[in-house]
Amino acid sequence: MSIEHRVSQLVEEVAEVDTVIAAAARRRHQGLLKPPGSLGALEELSVTLAAIAGINPPPPPSQPAVIIAAGDHGVHAQGVTPWPQSITATMVEMFCAGKAAVNAIAAAVGAQISVLDVGVANPVADHPLLRKARVRSGTADLTQGPAMTTDEAAQALLAGAGLAEELVGAGVDLFVTGDMGIANTTASACLIAAFTGREAAEVTGRGAGIDDATLRRKIEVVRAAVERHFTSERGIAAAGDPLSALAAVGGLEHAALVGVILSAAADGLPVVLDGVTAGAAALVAVALCPAASGYLVAGHRSAEPGASAALEHLKLDPVIDLGLRLGEGTGGLLAVPIVQASARALGEMGALADVVAGVGVEPDGA
Amino acid sequence: MSIEHRVSQLVEEVAEVDTVIAAAARRRHQGLLKPPGSLGALEELSVTLAAIAGINPPPPPSQPAVIIAAGDHGVHAQGVTPWPQSITATMVEMFCAGKAAVNAIAAAVGAQISVLDVGVANPVADHPLLRKARVRSGTADLTQGPAMTTDEAAQALLAGAGLAEELVGAGVDLFVTGDMGIANTTASACLIAAFTGREAAEVTGRGAGIDDATLRRKIEVVRAAVERHFTSERGIAAAGDPLSALAAVGGLEHAALVGVILSAAADGLPVVLDGVTAGAAALVAVALCPAASGYLVAGHRSAEPGASAALEHLKLDPVIDLGLRLGEGTGGLLAVPIVQASARALGEMGALADVVAGVGVEPDGA
Repeated sequence: MSIEHRVSQLVEEVAEVDTVIAAAARRRHQGLLKPPGSLGALEELSVTLAAIAGINPPPPPSQPAVIIAAGDHGVHAQGVTPWPQSITATMVEMFCAGKAAVNAIAAAVGAQISVLDVGVANPVADHPLLRKARVRSGTADLTQGPAMTTDEAAQALLAGAGLAEELVGAGVDLFVTGDMGIANTTASACLIAAFTGREAAEVTGRGAGIDDATLRRKIEVVRAAVERHFTSERGIAAAGDPLSALAAVGGLEHAALVGVILSAAADGLPVVLDGVTAGAAALVAVALCPAASGYLVAGHRSAEPGASAALEHLKLDPVIDLGLRLGEGTGGLLAVPIVQASARALGEMGALADVVAGVGVEPDGA
Repeated sequence: MSIEHRVSQLVEEVAEVDTVIAAAARRRHQGLLKPPGSLGALEELSVTLAAIAGINPPPPPSQPAVIIAAGDHGVHAQGVTPWPQSITATMVEMFCAGKAAVNAIAAAVGAQISVLDVGVANPVADHPLLRKARVRSGTADLTQGPAMTTDEAAQALLAGAGLAEELVGAGVDLFVTGDMGIANTTASACLIAAFTGREAAEVTGRGAGIDDATLRRKIEVVRAAVERHFTSERGIAAAGDPLSALAAVGGLEHAALVGVILSAAADGLPVVLDGVTAGAAALVAVALCPAASGYLVAGHRSAEPGASAALEHLKLDPVIDLGLRLGEGTGGLLAVPIVQASARALGEMGALADVVAGVGVEPDGA
């Protein structure tokens, strides 16, 4: 079977979330021991979990895991960031050594960590937390041609899907997307521009922190890449051919996260998105498989403008908004306890009728 | 010793938070393994914890507790809510029975619950989670005169402080304010108008959910109360005489939460505020004791407009913003894992210099 056919098979395994259960969960919330609607967005979050699980009330996710997909980017050569490419490999080792922000935050919220090397440029030492599935040592420069072949994109996608599948076998019941890749906000901006139709300047940000001159160069790189690969005469129609769009301007870690999303969705599990890289991957995943959108939770609103553009296109409201712009999965992880709490509230609260019946009042201003 | 003198003593026990440690914590964050500032508001949250603890990095709070102060309100007679007063007592019993939203959310974030009856109107059954310290069975109608005497306000305040002190003895190292009291958003609006100088219409909301006609009546009640107690010729200057202001228009649960805040601050522990009742109590606490402001964390932005007015006056940015308007401590509790994560990030991450030294790059766009 061709590798692209295996991607198609994965897409076919994703069922639509259960809208009948969602409606039932919404009704259940209306009857709980509180003024209807008084838990705000927490209520709809639990409805989303019910629709994903196909169970009302949904089981609270109890074993969350963040998958940190790592890859390097040929577009780094265009001077879109002051950080050297070698930082990607260094950070992979820091994740394994437990020294990064994602380690502290994952520990705080009780999530396990897996690191997935699908395309780091430099050597990385073996470690129990690290899964080595390197498709190539970094992508090609997307300003000169496609970043990778569709076959390579599919391989990285299936590596992400395979790791997620394996973690589900070990009991994981909620995924958070994490990512590491110096220059990957440039690739993310290209994908987001391609899938949302926004201008380069609207979706390109300062990533880990760049000065004005570098930002101008980065925007120009994104603009030219979008023109070359998508809006030129023989360009790719991203929505109709998402795998080619991913291969043209994406990163291997984007591809892996597409696989994580599709695999989790196929297994009926929620995926909490982190920031701009996750948003870009989610656009690809939903273009490949519209049913996957029902399994997504936007963990946070990244400071990166492309992240907000992606969330708007995906019609997702973020759980938290603290101005994070680190990646690694940090923002997504911070949302996990709130996601868990939403399910517990829906499942564990008593009924309003038990109280209201005794006192003869109608709720909510009647 | 007079009871008001005991309040003064408590105020004197509160030390300013440590700004030298805060500066050191901020410097430490600049040197951690990430682009400086990339953890957004999470960074300043950990700086706040360091300043409170007087330790850099601060110990992550590990034993959070929500104190749900409960009381009834004479202003209920003015038709400011469709809910009967008896719901307050019923909800106290529901907290004890584990059936309310606060129970599910506290369990999700690993917080313990204590319920404090300082002024419920109706009988409440004994329960291990319930501390009975009823000062009076509900306040008087604040539209007719003071809601209570300053002596009663001080008694309720000391009841809250005493419970907090006791919980600290049992290992609690972070407090979340919770509250229950039918009609307490009316009292909260009066306090917030008195301390912030805002108009009644700006700080009065729909509470648990009221229709337009009731909202108009509620605004008029708040407006008239503020005029009677504060802006009339012989009115109270709230900022200069906070205990009298509290007694004039506050609730017994507001007073208890003032005590929780002051006691926690005196013990050098953070207090995560819930919504509008907490915001009103915090205004009183900070007017009594300006040093207490350094110990406050705004857990969330309540949908109630007075809550935002209070936070603005207190110069606090909320951790989460999910449109909650339930009270009980629910919004404050949802912020707890994020507060804990902020301390762990500051304490557990490696140093940027260990990585950057090897590759010769300056962080953040240099």
